[in-house]
Amino acid sequence: MSSATSSPWLSRTANAALSDQLAARLALQIDQGLLAPGSRLPSIRACAQHHGVSPSTVVTAYDKLQAQGLAQAFPQRGFFVRESAGHLAAGSRPEQAPAGPLPRRPLPISATTLMRGMFQAPGQQPMPGLGTLPIEWLDLPMLSQALKKVCNATGLAELTLQYGEPAGDLRLRRALALLLGERGVTTVPEQLVTTVGATHALDVVTRSLLRAGDTVLVDEPGWSVEFARLRALGMRPLAVPRLDDGPDLEVMGQLIEAQPAEHRPRLYVTVSVLHNPTGGSISLQKAHRLLQFAQQHSLFILEDDSYAHLAPPHLPRLAALDALERTILVGGFSKILAPSFRVGFIAAPKSLVDRFVDTKLLSTLSSPALTEQALASCLESGRLRRHAERIRQKLDAARARSVQLAEAHNCRFAAPPRGLFGWLDVGCDTERLALRMHDDGWLLAPGSLFFATPRPGSLMRINFATTQQQRFWQALVAARRELAGQTASNVGGSART
Amino acid sequence: MSSATSSPWLSRTANAALSDQLAARLALQIDQGLLAPGSRLPSIRACAQHHGVSPSTVVTAYDKLQAQGLAQAFPQRGFFVRESAGHLAAGSRPEQAPAGPLPRRPLPISATTLMRGMFQAPGQQPMPGLGTLPIEWLDLPMLSQALKKVCNATGLAELTLQYGEPAGDLRLRRALALLLGERGVTTVPEQLVTTVGATHALDVVTRSLLRAGDTVLVDEPGWSVEFARLRALGMRPLAVPRLDDGPDLEVMGQLIEAQPAEHRPRLYVTVSVLHNPTGGSISLQKAHRLLQFAQQHSLFILEDDSYAHLAPPHLPRLAALDALERTILVGGFSKILAPSFRVGFIAAPKSLVDRFVDTKLLSTLSSPALTEQALASCLESGRLRRHAERIRQKLDAARARSVQLAEAHNCRFAAPPRGLFGWLDVGCDTERLALRMHDDGWLLAPGSLFFATPRPGSLMRINFATTQQQRFWQALVAARRELAGQTASNVGGSART
Repeated sequence: MSSATSSPWLSRTANAALSDQLAARLALQIDQGLLAPGSRLPSIRACAQHHGVSPSTVVTAYDKLQAQGLAQAFPQRGFFVRESAGHLAAGSRPEQAPAGPLPRRPLPISATTLMRGMFQAPGQQPMPGLGTLPIEWLDLPMLSQALKKVCNATGLAELTLQYGEPAGDLRLRRALALLLGERGVTTVPEQLVTTVGATHALDVVTRSLLRAGDTVLVDEPGWSVEFARLRALGMRPLAVPRLDDGPDLEVMGQLIEAQPAEHRPRLYVTVSVLHNPTGGSISLQKAHRLLQFAQQHSLFILEDDSYAHLAPPHLPRLAALDALERTILVGGFSKILAPSFRVGFIAAPKSLVDRFVDTKLLSTLSSPALTEQALASCLESGRLRRHAERIRQKLDAARARSVQLAEAHNCRFAAPPRGLFGWLDVGCDTERLALRMHDDGWLLAPGSLFFATPRPGSLMRINFATTQQQRFWQALVAARRELAGQTASNVGGSART
Repeated sequence: MSSATSSPWLSRTANAALSDQLAARLALQIDQGLLAPGSRLPSIRACAQHHGVSPSTVVTAYDKLQAQGLAQAFPQRGFFVRESAGHLAAGSRPEQAPAGPLPRRPLPISATTLMRGMFQAPGQQPMPGLGTLPIEWLDLPMLSQALKKVCNATGLAELTLQYGEPAGDLRLRRALALLLGERGVTTVPEQLVTTVGATHALDVVTRSLLRAGDTVLVDEPGWSVEFARLRALGMRPLAVPRLDDGPDLEVMGQLIEAQPAEHRPRLYVTVSVLHNPTGGSISLQKAHRLLQFAQQHSLFILEDDSYAHLAPPHLPRLAALDALERTILVGGFSKILAPSFRVGFIAAPKSLVDRFVDTKLLSTLSSPALTEQALASCLESGRLRRHAERIRQKLDAARARSVQLAEAHNCRFAAPPRGLFGWLDVGCDTERLALRMHDDGWLLAPGSLFFATPRPGSLMRINFATTQQQRFWQALVAARRELAGQTASNVGGSART
């Protein structure tokens, strides 16, 4: 370790010069939008200190960035990230929508950056900002056996050589109907459509029911990837404050009334159980009132039940109360089974099933039969249920420890800790904190990501399963202290370049 | 067989009464849009004769349909399919977009009906309207071995427990870059994005580059599912006549000029090699001129290379000529490998890769790593190449036989027979022919499906691999004769109810 710099990203033993490594690292951050166009690069001194290299190495790296057209020097002011070049689209795309190679991003960490973070190779340090469980929590033998069974079966011919059923594998849909029954949602295989994961399920439903320009009600705080997808489809999210027992129906009513008749929302997208990021679940009373409200305003409800496996089984779903009359339930298995399996589902009102199947056909033709049959086997054997129970126990223990660590490091929970995510007040701006800690290899989910209109603030979402290490909390405290010092010195007006 | 009716859909030995079976069969046809709202049901006598049942059975079946609200009787005029009930959408969706459970469809067989036809269980009679190869042509042992290798490998942990790479499995992208190199398309794994089949690839590209309201250039005749997807996304296809050597550039220029500046198309979607449905391939000269034209008009080209495996390797791709500068190439493996595998790809200009990855993330998060690794193994071993060669030889023999049969039954090819599809003039209205033959279990692809604005006509697309049986051509001739008789009798004004 004597040859290492203090940065995990640079190495004195690597073939490339340190300045090349640093330039490449910064170029990547610019490319990923972690350093926004127009923003100032750290001062030479601060950058040198931070990465444990000499100031001349930083100067060489910054010169390289300038030569690559990525940065620009302004006398007396320092180095800045160049404004992005023109896009394919002549018009003004919404800023949150996926855009060109060097898009102007409003946030240091965008929704898609966070999603790209999910694809880190295993074995790296835990990622407190991600929504995945540690891989050692998952049940690999269960998966392997289920897959081998499918591949060995003489039925492989039928299974793989046709497109499968448009609505998805019938055996899986039968198993899913039983699973939903256990959660109080009465349904039949004919009301179920399988998808390529829960993300695809949300995409199919919103594309089927809404058109570009339509308004759509969403929870706030809520999941930024959902906002990004809706905006990429040209839809306009209307943010409904999420209270601890569910949505604020008074504000929802006002939002609806404020729209001209032709732009009244027809859909409300929500997470009833273990809401992301607050961990709250809808109360029975609010669920009943919400369904009455939905009927009164001709609203459909898209209920995202992605966290079902991590929740106590008794928590009420809207789809259970209204028996899938105007509620569309979607779910997936990424959380507890295996993210790369990509099997999700839609449980739909009978009148909408065909429409969702059509959109599925137009978007991916069908879903892979192989993984659907393997999942069916895990469900039928009861192994997936037992695995989920074990995961819930592990998560309970992890949550208790993470809460203790957070509070010991002067952080405060803005919502009672439940489920997978903590909604935490860390006492400093979390966008700046996320950018600062990313340099040390920690990927955080700053609170601004969870607002339909991003706003700075001191809230942040943490994953209880991946915040078990003392050193994460120590790194957080150190970064917070450093940021406080920078702010004080900026207020003092010192030029640091 | 003595207990069977003359219809393959009805059975005297089934538990349900014949009238119930007939009513259910007709209800399904109404539901699938095969009997359009407002259209007249066959006369009692014709229906009885056609299905080999008594007129009173038909009367009972029609009464049931009326009781279910699906049909309506008009004195002296007969039974008609009821107009569809109201939809979720208050607005006026484009008619071709997927709509409610009883949508008003402009065609007896819509794009999605044809796609649903792909999902027929194996072992039924060949489907001349579908785009798939007979399952006995495919190489099951190759697939099974590749899958077992993936499931057995100790690497299953890494493979299935992470989301995989956002752009797709790196091993597969390396194998794809080599495959494309063999077709003259120079690319690197960094320019490749894997998808859930070619359909998903087309969806990701169009969603990334276009917004609702945008115009987009398409070939006509062309593939109806592409038209349907574009319209479902709110885009406006502009039809460019497809000549035998490629698109009509003069008309394309006129179409562009006719649009106000803000609605000029920015994308042209085409199949260069073995175009669907005509079988034509672009000439070198036209390819060169088209790329110059695209540069001049700032057009991107989306080149759908789905039929690559069935084509002679020397045929030119636009992506080969312009080295993926403004051409985006997409492809898949459904045709020759296994439809339900759902692995496709995008080969993109460097400046667009990130945008496509972002849209992939928002639409399905990632693609299944398992099937991607299995495909990589089939490519690396060279088995897939040898399999494709065998398929091409089989197809050549099948095409020769099918052409002979078609001509012996007084059909004429509107384009020289090449590749998988024949573009055939059968000498009668193919929408009516398709509806008539569907009753006997034949799924046809009437020519009207291949026009952006559907039009009746005597052209039809046939699959050379699934039109090998004499009895199909005999059924076609019989149906044509029957339709000619009906037309004559309608002209004569006879009431047949």
